[in-house]
Amino acid sequence: MTSDIAIVGAGVTKFGKRHDVTYRELLAEAASEAFLTMDEIHPEDVEGLYVSASMPELTVDQAHVGNLAAQELGVTPKIVSRIEMACSSGSTAIRNAWAAIKSGMIDTAVVVGLEKMTHNPRQANKGLCIVPDVEYESINGITAYSGFALAARKHMKEYGTTREQLSMVAVKNHSNAAKNEKAQFHSMGEISLEKAMNARMVADPLNLFDCSPITDGGAAVVLTRGDLAKKYTDQPIWIKGAGQSIEPSLGISNMPSITEWHALKRAAKDAYKMANVEPKDIDVAETHDCFTIAEIIEYEDLGFTKKGNGGKFIEDGESRLDGSLPVNTSGGLKAKGHPIGATGIAQIVEITTQLRGKAGKRQVDDARIGLTHNLAGFATHHVVHILSNER
Amino acid sequence: MTSDIAIVGAGVTKFGKRHDVTYRELLAEAASEAFLTMDEIHPEDVEGLYVSASMPELTVDQAHVGNLAAQELGVTPKIVSRIEMACSSGSTAIRNAWAAIKSGMIDTAVVVGLEKMTHNPRQANKGLCIVPDVEYESINGITAYSGFALAARKHMKEYGTTREQLSMVAVKNHSNAAKNEKAQFHSMGEISLEKAMNARMVADPLNLFDCSPITDGGAAVVLTRGDLAKKYTDQPIWIKGAGQSIEPSLGISNMPSITEWHALKRAAKDAYKMANVEPKDIDVAETHDCFTIAEIIEYEDLGFTKKGNGGKFIEDGESRLDGSLPVNTSGGLKAKGHPIGATGIAQIVEITTQLRGKAGKRQVDDARIGLTHNLAGFATHHVVHILSNER
Repeated sequence: MTSDIAIVGAGVTKFGKRHDVTYRELLAEAASEAFLTMDEIHPEDVEGLYVSASMPELTVDQAHVGNLAAQELGVTPKIVSRIEMACSSGSTAIRNAWAAIKSGMIDTAVVVGLEKMTHNPRQANKGLCIVPDVEYESINGITAYSGFALAARKHMKEYGTTREQLSMVAVKNHSNAAKNEKAQFHSMGEISLEKAMNARMVADPLNLFDCSPITDGGAAVVLTRGDLAKKYTDQPIWIKGAGQSIEPSLGISNMPSITEWHALKRAAKDAYKMANVEPKDIDVAETHDCFTIAEIIEYEDLGFTKKGNGGKFIEDGESRLDGSLPVNTSGGLKAKGHPIGATGIAQIVEITTQLRGKAGKRQVDDARIGLTHNLAGFATHHVVHILSNER
Repeated sequence: MTSDIAIVGAGVTKFGKRHDVTYRELLAEAASEAFLTMDEIHPEDVEGLYVSASMPELTVDQAHVGNLAAQELGVTPKIVSRIEMACSSGSTAIRNAWAAIKSGMIDTAVVVGLEKMTHNPRQANKGLCIVPDVEYESINGITAYSGFALAARKHMKEYGTTREQLSMVAVKNHSNAAKNEKAQFHSMGEISLEKAMNARMVADPLNLFDCSPITDGGAAVVLTRGDLAKKYTDQPIWIKGAGQSIEPSLGISNMPSITEWHALKRAAKDAYKMANVEPKDIDVAETHDCFTIAEIIEYEDLGFTKKGNGGKFIEDGESRLDGSLPVNTSGGLKAKGHPIGATGIAQIVEITTQLRGKAGKRQVDDARIGLTHNLAGFATHHVVHILSNER
């Protein structure tokens, strides 16, 4: 089936500590990075404007950032929405933009995501700690860190996943970040398995190199109706499939399983079906490696390998840049960084860049079909997109 | 043109100080109120779930409330989004649900909005004060109160609007609230013009009775594809038109005019055109009376009367329950209350209830076409919906 919706612009800002810009400057920079990948775009083209932001109320004392975006871009769209779905805000914003274009409400939309966190770590940490169920769980000490640590320990027990395999994910993603100048840890370069394994403990068994960092950064994409794509670029990338699913569980205690993510399997199934492809057809993927254990579980529940085999998948080098299915070529959340509102959009930007053949030192040869996976909470909410450079 | 999208359920909670319920209980109550107006609905019907919430991060220390809603409703939708567009979050959430259904992504969506503010007035006030431009304006003392006071003073100077006319809006809306048991100030009953005029000053010329209150409350609607409507109710209400527009201005200083709201005129024009009706065809309206001056300007920019005539419109009784175009029959933000995330949805609920002929003591005779208007910021963002009980 041909796709109705094209990505015609896609860019990210430098991720990391961005004390050189204000929040609004970072927002404008993200949009500019996307516009610079296009042949043209005019203010009146921006009929839809979607802003993905998780915690500006906490970290920069500013609400109504949808209106801020209209101001910074100098546009008067027909629909403006700020979306918050915690770490999956970005991909959810893209889903809403997709629907608005598909419905005929608008022709073209800018989707911009950002977060500015590093200048205010106390509020950034609060923002992260109030994503799970505050009344019943966070208040008793279940944070993202301890929650994913439980998943790691259980996955180790059930499937024999090892401490080394967790660290191999970090080593791979730092290696990719070393090839991505926009990545937060670009200048750190490659890290050794020893360094990754011996970092200080955060929540046993997860150490510092198993955890994604606090990051400032922005990302933006421009979506348009298929028949208008050539106006903006000669390299449109097509949204071929999408799937989204959620568990009726804000916290971890209502999850049917913490090592097999049923909502991810539902989202992936819908996306593969819509795109009419199978996991083996995917050439490159960006998955949600908020913790190393997450990437391992995602190999399994996205169908890249069989259940329980995720540890072996990284150990065998399958997901490396030179492997059979390179994952997180950007450096991933682990090493590119995780500015919450930007993350889901930055994943789409990386795959778009790969499918356009413009990923430089980290380019995957002959990448034609790519996948993104963005999650929130204790893997309670998932969005999967499948992109192609062929309509 | 026949409408593709029907409202098949619509309900609000009691508004006011709701110290009897937690945030999640209020959310569930809002959804239940909508479900109780339907013949049936099943968990698997809820393919879309949209949550309108402005400041739960500040007032109840909980983010990711889209996921919370899935938990409280016990549903696993294909799309879940939490929308924040300050005071216009509710109507914007409805726009996104409309697009998702129209696009074919989903058949049926629940849109629930809420805010819990009264238990934590310090954080609620912070939430309101960070809606305008914090870096350039709020920090210098421009709040919603002082900003709308500037608009009132300028409207008085330009058009001769009087202090009495501002208070007449409050008197009317409190009179309507006295007929609405769900309204925050229901039990206060009617108020005299003298009482409204002599209340203590908040931001000259706006006094306490010119300002909407801090409120706890929730509202929900269920939208579905037109051909599925009869499954859920024999009284579907149809979304005939919608328009949304924004100024590229977060604060007040970039507004082209503070007494003539161009973005509202654009949104209204689009909505009237889509519905193929004119202002004179509207039988009943809920407009965004965050301050009394706002309702007066809205009479004008929605085309209910000519520019500058808004004060006369209220003085002549045109917008009273027994007038030619009853406005804010629910009591409006002023007297029904203004729980930010619920407001735009509660407006749709009131018009739906009126068009179903179920508004009790405040029923407008033979109401067939209704309008809602929801704004945010210094009238920088507007959403207009036109509903009808005929497809």
